[in-house]
Amino acid sequence: MTSESTAGSEPDLLVVGAGLIGTSIGLAARAAGWRVALVDADPGRASLAAKMGAGDAVAGVVPARLAVAAVPPALVGATCAELLRELPQALVTHVCSVQLGPAGEVEAFSGSAVQRFAGGHPIAGREVSGPAAASADLFADRAWAVCPLPGSGPAVADAVVELARMCRAEPIVLSAREHDELLARLSHAPQLVASALASTLATMTEDETRLAGTGLRDTTRLADSDPAMWGQIAAANAGELAAAVRAVAEPMLALAERLESGDPSVADEAVRALVTRGRAGRAMLPGKHGRRAVQLAVVRCIVPDTPGSLARLFADAAAFSVNVEDVRVDHAPGQPIGFAELFVAPTDRERLVRGLRDRHWTVSEGADEAL
Amino acid sequence: MTSESTAGSEPDLLVVGAGLIGTSIGLAARAAGWRVALVDADPGRASLAAKMGAGDAVAGVVPARLAVAAVPPALVGATCAELLRELPQALVTHVCSVQLGPAGEVEAFSGSAVQRFAGGHPIAGREVSGPAAASADLFADRAWAVCPLPGSGPAVADAVVELARMCRAEPIVLSAREHDELLARLSHAPQLVASALASTLATMTEDETRLAGTGLRDTTRLADSDPAMWGQIAAANAGELAAAVRAVAEPMLALAERLESGDPSVADEAVRALVTRGRAGRAMLPGKHGRRAVQLAVVRCIVPDTPGSLARLFADAAAFSVNVEDVRVDHAPGQPIGFAELFVAPTDRERLVRGLRDRHWTVSEGADEAL
Repeated sequence: MTSESTAGSEPDLLVVGAGLIGTSIGLAARAAGWRVALVDADPGRASLAAKMGAGDAVAGVVPARLAVAAVPPALVGATCAELLRELPQALVTHVCSVQLGPAGEVEAFSGSAVQRFAGGHPIAGREVSGPAAASADLFADRAWAVCPLPGSGPAVADAVVELARMCRAEPIVLSAREHDELLARLSHAPQLVASALASTLATMTEDETRLAGTGLRDTTRLADSDPAMWGQIAAANAGELAAAVRAVAEPMLALAERLESGDPSVADEAVRALVTRGRAGRAMLPGKHGRRAVQLAVVRCIVPDTPGSLARLFADAAAFSVNVEDVRVDHAPGQPIGFAELFVAPTDRERLVRGLRDRHWTVSEGADEAL
Repeated sequence: MTSESTAGSEPDLLVVGAGLIGTSIGLAARAAGWRVALVDADPGRASLAAKMGAGDAVAGVVPARLAVAAVPPALVGATCAELLRELPQALVTHVCSVQLGPAGEVEAFSGSAVQRFAGGHPIAGREVSGPAAASADLFADRAWAVCPLPGSGPAVADAVVELARMCRAEPIVLSAREHDELLARLSHAPQLVASALASTLATMTEDETRLAGTGLRDTTRLADSDPAMWGQIAAANAGELAAAVRAVAEPMLALAERLESGDPSVADEAVRALVTRGRAGRAMLPGKHGRRAVQLAVVRCIVPDTPGSLARLFADAAAFSVNVEDVRVDHAPGQPIGFAELFVAPTDRERLVRGLRDRHWTVSEGADEAL
């Protein structure tokens, strides 16, 4: 499938940078019937992406209707400015988690060509990276920020909205400044909080971390992310990020002082107030289905860690026509068995529990949970 | 099943407090054939726990071989001291996430009776509480800290180890001080970090949080916890907790200062160093199976949110004799479809992908991940 693009068949989309995001966009665009050209500073990556079906690898920038810069954060502004200069007909966007920095570079270097530029940012990162982790459905049902500049023309904003929809994402138009403020609070600061918390484990022994529960694992999951990428994001959004980090860290230090007061009732009240505020904040997050959270019934089931047991559980559940809305699989230190928590409509719970018990599963009913 | 305990048939276990943990212990003990009595300050809760099969509800403390105080943190010390006094033959333990405070109260009030006491703490909390959420398998494969005091006799330490094993947990013997230091870092501080991060969302609008990704939801999951319980835990472990909170917050503030330096390369380096340390810390956590993390292949699959589709996916997967080691289901804002990520042995990946595609699933292969 790797082939040089031939003159006379201008692609619909030029993807610059065949990493996780660029390759996933290429896969989605190819699935939608778009002609896609892929270029990467590392020809091996473009070639791998092309082999995965994300488009045709090309050796350099080629004309296209729309060009998307899917390069590391530090290179986004310069890449977009270069694309605007080299491709005088193309509309240009990017996929960076920071908007103002690249926008400033484009404004500084591109003159009136800025009318062909608008920023973009699909909210679809993962802890893994590279073309091999790419997927045509990476963006489906995700938000995709579309950030036109004051000088952007309507054609490019429309094209980025169309790109987002083609990837089955939900476009959300907002200014670059609004984007950077929000992302500092919703994504960049949470990353650093997870990393700061995980850092405190680095000096512990394996014996000591045996007492860690599942909560710590969830809270630090983001800490597996790529240091180089986050260094670049932080550098590009440093001011907003500093404010967002302070908004978490300063109340924590104030809390530490209350804990050090020596008065248990002071400690109790301070922590109770913080956890109460945290619940209020958590309630602002969209539910797993993007609606307000729905109440689901939880059915817990022992799943031996033997071949096919999880599959057998689902096969059995399927027999009762119960729609399993979600599943959480949970293993814990030391032993090779685990649990599955099946989330179902409360009206389906009894049927599922009875049915699974009839088929000799060890089942218990949990409380309803908001999901 | 609710019945008053009758004289002459002393139960093996008296559970004081029929909440999530107490009721779950009762269910596990009954499943193991133990005779269990349940008492709660709220007779309705004891009665509900009894109806669930966790033992016989009794109106007050009754003699038993072993008594476990499963009461709110602030009441644990006094309850254990009272049990030691009222039941001169019984061995006494508790299930509190703080050990030193209750231990001090027991030592202060119980004289030589301390030889019948040892602390305990199953690492098995949930964001939900109450007897209705209880389950006989709540502790299976979890760690269960066993914390004898210097004055504890061998019989009680053995009894708590036996209780943990009966609940299918893994007993880990350590001192009360070691426990409180470790739990401050592994559980109490992470709770407050999650709450502090979630607190910053409380002033945002639903429109703004549409740009939140799945990472923020994971990082703040713990923030759903009960404020009153955490107030009590914090008050009882305030010193250790203050130190653990500072160990996260102070590096965050130092980082904010670097971000405010105005020099992007300073910001980049500081964040890169923090994220790198976070990865090292995260690597100290036990894998989901309690072993060092294992490499698994990830297969991503679109799952329409229609009745039975997740079940059908597993039924199809079962047909290829692939052992699905874990599954992550992921829905996102706006639209009613989702994805399942199936984690399988790398050697099973090809077979699963081919088989699912043959059955018309939209599948992509992710990179291997450590689990």
